Amino acid sequence: MKHLYDCFLGEKRTSVYLARQVDDIIETIKASQKIALWVCDSTTTNFLAVPEINKVVLESGEISKKWDSVEQICAAAVRLRMGRDGVVIGFGGGVVCDIAGFAASMYMRGCSLALVPTTLLAMVDASLGGKTAIDIFGIKNLVGSFYPARHLYLCPPLLSSLPVKEFINGLGEVIKHALLSPDSRLMELLETKKNKILSLDTMVLQELVIASLEVKRRYIESDPREEIGLRAMLNLGHTFAHALETVGNLFSWSHGEAVAWGTVKALQAGVALRVTDEPYAHRAIAVFESYGFDIHHRVKETKRFLEALEGDKKRSGSSIRFVIMQTQGKGTLQHLDQSLIISII
Amino acid sequence: MKHLYDCFLGEKRTSVYLARQVDDIIETIKASQKIALWVCDSTTTNFLAVPEINKVVLESGEISKKWDSVEQICAAAVRLRMGRDGVVIGFGGGVVCDIAGFAASMYMRGCSLALVPTTLLAMVDASLGGKTAIDIFGIKNLVGSFYPARHLYLCPPLLSSLPVKEFINGLGEVIKHALLSPDSRLMELLETKKNKILSLDTMVLQELVIASLEVKRRYIESDPREEIGLRAMLNLGHTFAHALETVGNLFSWSHGEAVAWGTVKALQAGVALRVTDEPYAHRAIAVFESYGFDIHHRVKETKRFLEALEGDKKRSGSSIRFVIMQTQGKGTLQHLDQSLIISII
Repeated sequence: MKHLYDCFLGEKRTSVYLARQVDDIIETIKASQKIALWVCDSTTTNFLAVPEINKVVLESGEISKKWDSVEQICAAAVRLRMGRDGVVIGFGGGVVCDIAGFAASMYMRGCSLALVPTTLLAMVDASLGGKTAIDIFGIKNLVGSFYPARHLYLCPPLLSSLPVKEFINGLGEVIKHALLSPDSRLMELLETKKNKILSLDTMVLQELVIASLEVKRRYIESDPREEIGLRAMLNLGHTFAHALETVGNLFSWSHGEAVAWGTVKALQAGVALRVTDEPYAHRAIAVFESYGFDIHHRVKETKRFLEALEGDKKRSGSSIRFVIMQTQGKGTLQHLDQSLIISII
Repeated sequence: MKHLYDCFLGEKRTSVYLARQVDDIIETIKASQKIALWVCDSTTTNFLAVPEINKVVLESGEISKKWDSVEQICAAAVRLRMGRDGVVIGFGGGVVCDIAGFAASMYMRGCSLALVPTTLLAMVDASLGGKTAIDIFGIKNLVGSFYPARHLYLCPPLLSSLPVKEFINGLGEVIKHALLSPDSRLMELLETKKNKILSLDTMVLQELVIASLEVKRRYIESDPREEIGLRAMLNLGHTFAHALETVGNLFSWSHGEAVAWGTVKALQAGVALRVTDEPYAHRAIAVFESYGFDIHHRVKETKRFLEALEGDKKRSGSSIRFVIMQTQGKGTLQHLDQSLIISII
């Protein structure tokens, strides 16, 4: 197990490790001698088929992001007589990481948390930064906490069993990170190693995951609680994406597909406003296209889309601010005229 | 409205104010122009009989410390279209402050929180320090968060309508704070102004509340997240008290009565071990007695009491550590032999 770096989030620290196989992670947790409770779902439980592991198995999918799941985890922790010094390990995609993190943040006012993301999206996004949440009243992430994992284990070989749709889902965020990176190395990797990436070459995936997570790390370390606007840059494409997900209902677009579409819309808006450097935007749009993202989709229900934008919880004051890029790694928050939005969607 | 001081808890800050009447607090919140949601209970709602106030009214008592209450608050916040910049105001005793704080800590991953404690116990204890919680599976405070209020409004005249039993409940914690204070001024106030305190003289109560809260402030500022053992000193008497509450079931002993009894047990244990200064212990025991606390109670169900001690979540490792005082303001964490515990309870 290789220690990559520590990510500092305010008073909290996440130690990030690279693991070659799941067994190494299980051994490390065991060696810590702490009472450990693994949280997985009906898919990822198969990687944890070891009798001595205590685990809570949630139903796969967004449906599990509810209070019942938190209670299930707490009940298991109580049965294990786990104290504040015990550790909850989230083993799964973004949903499992979100729920495990939320439960750990509140169990006895916060026990230790480790995360083992098993999807590309979770490896490059959900697992670092401390955002946890569940949904209530059908509102996504309505309640949650900022609770960074103490340990984060990246295990790229886990990606080999990921369904293609799930993998592409994660690539949407990776390309977004390539746009936000201070240099164009991640974009180059995406351009030059496309075949190896899509054939899940372990070494290239490892490079991709580490480089992509590094971009996220830079933004969240400089603004852990989203207070000075820097961390908000990570929302590039997300305001458009959330509205698309709402209108298309949450199941027809994967998050990564929606983010890819939304990021392209943000780039097009920026070009129209002469804020975004054109060659930079076109290069990124070409990469999205080369990985097969449906970036030319036109929204039919314009009115509902605009209403969904209004409902976005990241609005500040009375109008919504979009992340608009200037060039590689440089963006701003801007209001967009409704007429411009209508013309690009 | 007088600004008393700011209490710094790690990265967070609680500004503490002294208000002469509830109306001043209502006006201040209104003037902030934020979307505001008041949380009260069926008793404290009477102080908020103003039509323009948005409020959630919980059932009075521990029964409300459940997830349903959090959902009720979130539902009201969603109806008000409240964002992260909105404010939840907890207006009530410890239960209301705990629930309002817990809900605010998670609504959109944390909105603004103000507290207006209405009981003596909440004024000198629950309202400062950021501990929030609800009960699940019948386990008190099993889930919660550290989430200090941004604003804390002390309004001692509210105490005049408090039932005597509730007032005495709070005095248990005040006397405990007097023991933990670096000097004996609070103890002197309790000794010399007993009649004015018990007749609820506003000026004396104000002095008592401010001095008592100041003790808590010292401990939590030096150890906001209970990591270096200093904040644990505030648990003086609490390990004994929780076991008594468990054995006697939560309803027959008020928390303050149990803390008074537990604090006396901790003093007696310390004297027996020759750790606690005898005159200091006797002075405090005399004060507890003078306010009518039942400190001579003998536990009949010794076995169940010892089991309840074992279950105390503040145990560290395999055995329980008690706060044992040396002298004014100086304490340590110590293990106690079972034989000693049996002899004093």
